[in-house]
Amino acid sequence: SRSINLAVIPGDGIGQEVVAEGLKVLSAVLPQDVKLETKEYDFGAQRYHATGETLTDADLEQLRRHDAILLGAIGDPSVPSGVLERGFLLKLRFAFDHHVNLRPSKLLPGVATPLAGQPEIDFVVVREGTEGPYTGNGGTIRKGTPHEVATEVSVNTAYGVERVVRDAFERAQARPRKKLTLVHKNNVLTFAGHLWTNVFNRVAEEYPEVTTDYIHVDAATIYLVTDPARFDVIVTDNLFGDIITDLAAAVSGGIGVAASGNINPSREFPSMFEPVHGSAPDIAGQGKADPTATVLSVALLLRHLGYDDEADRIDAAVAADLTERTGKPARSTSEIGDALAVRVAG
Amino acid sequence: SRSINLAVIPGDGIGQEVVAEGLKVLSAVLPQDVKLETKEYDFGAQRYHATGETLTDADLEQLRRHDAILLGAIGDPSVPSGVLERGFLLKLRFAFDHHVNLRPSKLLPGVATPLAGQPEIDFVVVREGTEGPYTGNGGTIRKGTPHEVATEVSVNTAYGVERVVRDAFERAQARPRKKLTLVHKNNVLTFAGHLWTNVFNRVAEEYPEVTTDYIHVDAATIYLVTDPARFDVIVTDNLFGDIITDLAAAVSGGIGVAASGNINPSREFPSMFEPVHGSAPDIAGQGKADPTATVLSVALLLRHLGYDDEADRIDAAVAADLTERTGKPARSTSEIGDALAVRVAG
Ligand SMILES: CC(C)[C@H](C(=O)O)[C@@H](O)C(=O)O
Ligand SMILES: CC(C)[C@H](C(=O)O)[C@@H](O)C(=O)O
Repeated sequence: SRSINLAVIPGDGIGQEVVAEGLKVLSAVLPQDVKLETKEYDFGAQRYHATGETLTDADLEQLRRHDAILLGAIGDPSVPSGVLERGFLLKLRFAFDHHVNLRPSKLLPGVATPLAGQPEIDFVVVREGTEGPYTGNGGTIRKGTPHEVATEVSVNTAYGVERVVRDAFERAQARPRKKLTLVHKNNVLTFAGHLWTNVFNRVAEEYPEVTTDYIHVDAATIYLVTDPARFDVIVTDNLFGDIITDLAAAVSGGIGVAASGNINPSREFPSMFEPVHGSAPDIAGQGKADPTATVLSVALLLRHLGYDDEADRIDAAVAADLTERTGKPARSTSEIGDALAVRVAG
Repeated sequence: SRSINLAVIPGDGIGQEVVAEGLKVLSAVLPQDVKLETKEYDFGAQRYHATGETLTDADLEQLRRHDAILLGAIGDPSVPSGVLERGFLLKLRFAFDHHVNLRPSKLLPGVATPLAGQPEIDFVVVREGTEGPYTGNGGTIRKGTPHEVATEVSVNTAYGVERVVRDAFERAQARPRKKLTLVHKNNVLTFAGHLWTNVFNRVAEEYPEVTTDYIHVDAATIYLVTDPARFDVIVTDNLFGDIITDLAAAVSGGIGVAASGNINPSREFPSMFEPVHGSAPDIAGQGKADPTATVLSVALLLRHLGYDDEADRIDAAVAADLTERTGKPARSTSEIGDALAVRVAG
């Protein structure tokens, strides 16, 4: 019989609330014969304040025994900026080699967007997750003096770029439009830019059916608001991916519905799935958070583990729920979760 | 008697056409007693192909004798990506220490925007222009092999950050709302992020009337499409500034109307003014390019040289022209220039 052994990290702020709904929908969608085991972990601001720890080697040892990880949100204003981000979120992405950071954007009919004219939006960003300016390389000299110099080093390797580019080509090949856009800034960041561009062009030869193009990251933000329909699959580096996926989320229904997967395709380590939004401490504990992004992250998780039908059912339930929202009164976090659970079960 | 000794660099593609209109409006707006001298330089793709040169030391020596520089656009598909950008545009910004890269965004009533509901947009981005990931630091080893490693080093100095932050505080102080937002990614790029944040907070103490806040660059792209009215003055690093100003241009009337100044406030070197858009080779020579961004860049140039009334008259002429466009047939590049020249003269 089949089983899923899931690590659950509710985290901070609204993390608790949205993860509860994610698990509700997960239980509702799984067939009877699949045994779901969950283990909750208390990472986040509270544990950091209590113990000074963000993520220890022992923690990593435990986490890696799971099939996958579901994360709510990590971060709190009481913790200095960077501590939990570098000490937990990024540490986990690097430790488990989550090099494919997958972020789909789809604007469903009737869903609110800040863009005029309800444009067609249906693309997925494959963001590199283990290199670029996120490596923590760099440093500071003469800190706090008028002569301080601080550097950040973006590290890009042929190995790291090729595997994520290849993953993006595979995804593009599997989609009806078969189009892949490389987003970089190769006219200024010429060292990294040449590496990305050359690897991209080389791998492209193996995928003759995939149409390719290149645009600079600055121009990409323009297209995301003036012509988002031009995108099918985008592949880009860690930092550019961070920036354009927040914008992509904003134009395609808001970060309340943006899901993401931190994926290790080799399955050597468990992959982690999380909403793109943060812990939103201002609305925490009030039942106001939209759990949809977490529920969609559960769909990504299921697809990663091979439960494609169940993932499809979640996507369909969310689509139906979103398109029926217009004009209705706002629902609480658990009301939305209940509605989705009913839909996927039915 | 007063005089302006202007270097004119039409450049590539539509550069020629838009610069001609910029000069037309400049001549029309200047009082009789101001002597305008212009000297044209042939930098760009053609000169590069003919001579292999982008910008020599002798060129710099000549350029620095001018009071200011007006640039159309540089770049052509026939030149490998990066050659003219690094070899001309960035070389000039660095050589003349253009550390304040000024990019105002204002959505005028009736002007088309991809955003729904015609939001209020009136802010200015002060982008650092001589540091960050634009320094060209970095390199490549094992190029072209499966073991290639390419790095890009973002260099940030207290000296460089403080002067641009100070400039931004001055600009915020002079505006009615007196609000300054620092945009960075200090939770991930912690070395540079701490430097920027500390300098920003320290300088803030000298400007008690200015309201300050901080947002991450990814979140900034969200606000730019969901709540652009929250911005008054933004200060940010070179790369983040590049990205968010293209987005800012897109939401506030398009890059056809986005002006920029590469400013050396000390006036030790001439400052350079240019439209944010590129050379657009696809529409070059057809009289289709909108010269408005260049004309607005001329206004920035005039303000930099102390001709505030004349700059105001150009801004007013452009505002009137833009708000009267709706429903009218498209005009040619020179028709728009003529109309603006008539308005500023009247
Ligand atoms: C919180 C932060 C470290 C993170 C990132 O920059 O990757 C977030 O913005 C994201 O996009 O997942
Ligand atoms: C052409 C390129 C070098 C330049 C930049 O990145 O600064 C452009 O995008 C700009 O914004 O002026």
